[in-house]
Amino acid sequence: MIPVGISDAPLDDVIPAGNIDIIRGISHFIVENVRTARRFLKRCDKNIDIDALTFYELNGHTQELNIASFLEPLRSGLPVGMMSEAGCPGVADPGAQVAAIAQREGFRVVPLAGPSSILMSLMASGFNGQGFAFNGYLPIENDKRIKALKELENRAYRLSQTQIFIETPYRNAKFFEFLTAHLRPETLLCVASQITDPEAESIITRSVAQWKKHPAQLTKMPAIFLISKP
Amino acid sequence: MIPVGISDAPLDDVIPAGNIDIIRGISHFIVENVRTARRFLKRCDKNIDIDALTFYELNGHTQELNIASFLEPLRSGLPVGMMSEAGCPGVADPGAQVAAIAQREGFRVVPLAGPSSILMSLMASGFNGQGFAFNGYLPIENDKRIKALKELENRAYRLSQTQIFIETPYRNAKFFEFLTAHLRPETLLCVASQITDPEAESIITRSVAQWKKHPAQLTKMPAIFLISKP
Repeated sequence: MIPVGISDAPLDDVIPAGNIDIIRGISHFIVENVRTARRFLKRCDKNIDIDALTFYELNGHTQELNIASFLEPLRSGLPVGMMSEAGCPGVADPGAQVAAIAQREGFRVVPLAGPSSILMSLMASGFNGQGFAFNGYLPIENDKRIKALKELENRAYRLSQTQIFIETPYRNAKFFEFLTAHLRPETLLCVASQITDPEAESIITRSVAQWKKHPAQLTKMPAIFLISKP
Repeated sequence: MIPVGISDAPLDDVIPAGNIDIIRGISHFIVENVRTARRFLKRCDKNIDIDALTFYELNGHTQELNIASFLEPLRSGLPVGMMSEAGCPGVADPGAQVAAIAQREGFRVVPLAGPSSILMSLMASGFNGQGFAFNGYLPIENDKRIKALKELENRAYRLSQTQIFIETPYRNAKFFEFLTAHLRPETLLCVASQITDPEAESIITRSVAQWKKHPAQLTKMPAIFLISKP
């Protein structure tokens, strides 16, 4: 399970050197997107012979049966790497099914260290890191979305559990408005965008009331949102 | 927010080289334990002049007022590093209060990438990474402990949310027995121990029924536990 970068930061800033040694020993990769996977591997080592590698694409349309067949090299004793488009495979990204099949068949599944917007935003938010939940995307339909948000806010208070969620980059500006419109004014909201980008990273915690006075500027950039009771 | 290793693995295997460049530029560190922090810094760069550095110890006994004073260098424009004993500061470890105070005072809080037993065990478990919760320790008292475990198991089924929790190393063997005694036989349990240790890492997912037939051997080693509906 191979993490990849989550920004244009130099790879040395976010990926341990040991990962690259491991990558050099792998010829079969299951990837969310072949083009970005090739680009990542070239950045890891410009001498890698990309054309000698085999890629299997894993996305929403891939059948369970095909995923199992992607693991064929394991049955011959060869390692298979799993990479998503950004960050940690299997966490808010494809890859969990691959790990699940490998586990079921008794293969060793090895996770490598790397950047995760979930963990990194939590570290910097100042919110409770002894109890937290990642919830993916909220529902799209407005009534359901409001209900889901209120439920997460209630859990943040009732369980003292930091609540983390995401939205697609092009909807983030509207999503921020939605959050400040429906959360309690005293609730703390951390907005983390462009994590690990040396120029543009921003991770800021404020009460919803403060955010209303100084709104976040999120124009089509990757961001993650966290809420906590005060 | 500076992650440190979670095993005796070579630092290059788990810490990006960029972190070490950043560490070289810091003279003030808030740390969970001064002795282990010094050892980590020496491993990062054997030429670091440890005696020229200032350490502030942060643990359960540290007062909020003292923590604020540890951030004094920030007010003079100097960076302050935060390190816990292992893994990511502020996540299942001290450090969140430091980040919270820095956020409140409007300082930039920068998280660095590194190993996290929570994220890495989740990646390798094969469990749902679109919805998961970290719950820290279960209560110690037996009745409360059983109730808390059943509640987490219910949430795993009701919310399709992977539930993650920890126990102290010396209690892990008993904790494993407790889990297999009280979870439903069909519930999936991932036991992850000694993550990133090149020799001893073990991350295995099985149903509770299967674990009962092949119990985990957890003798005083760091471990983390994850459950999922089948």
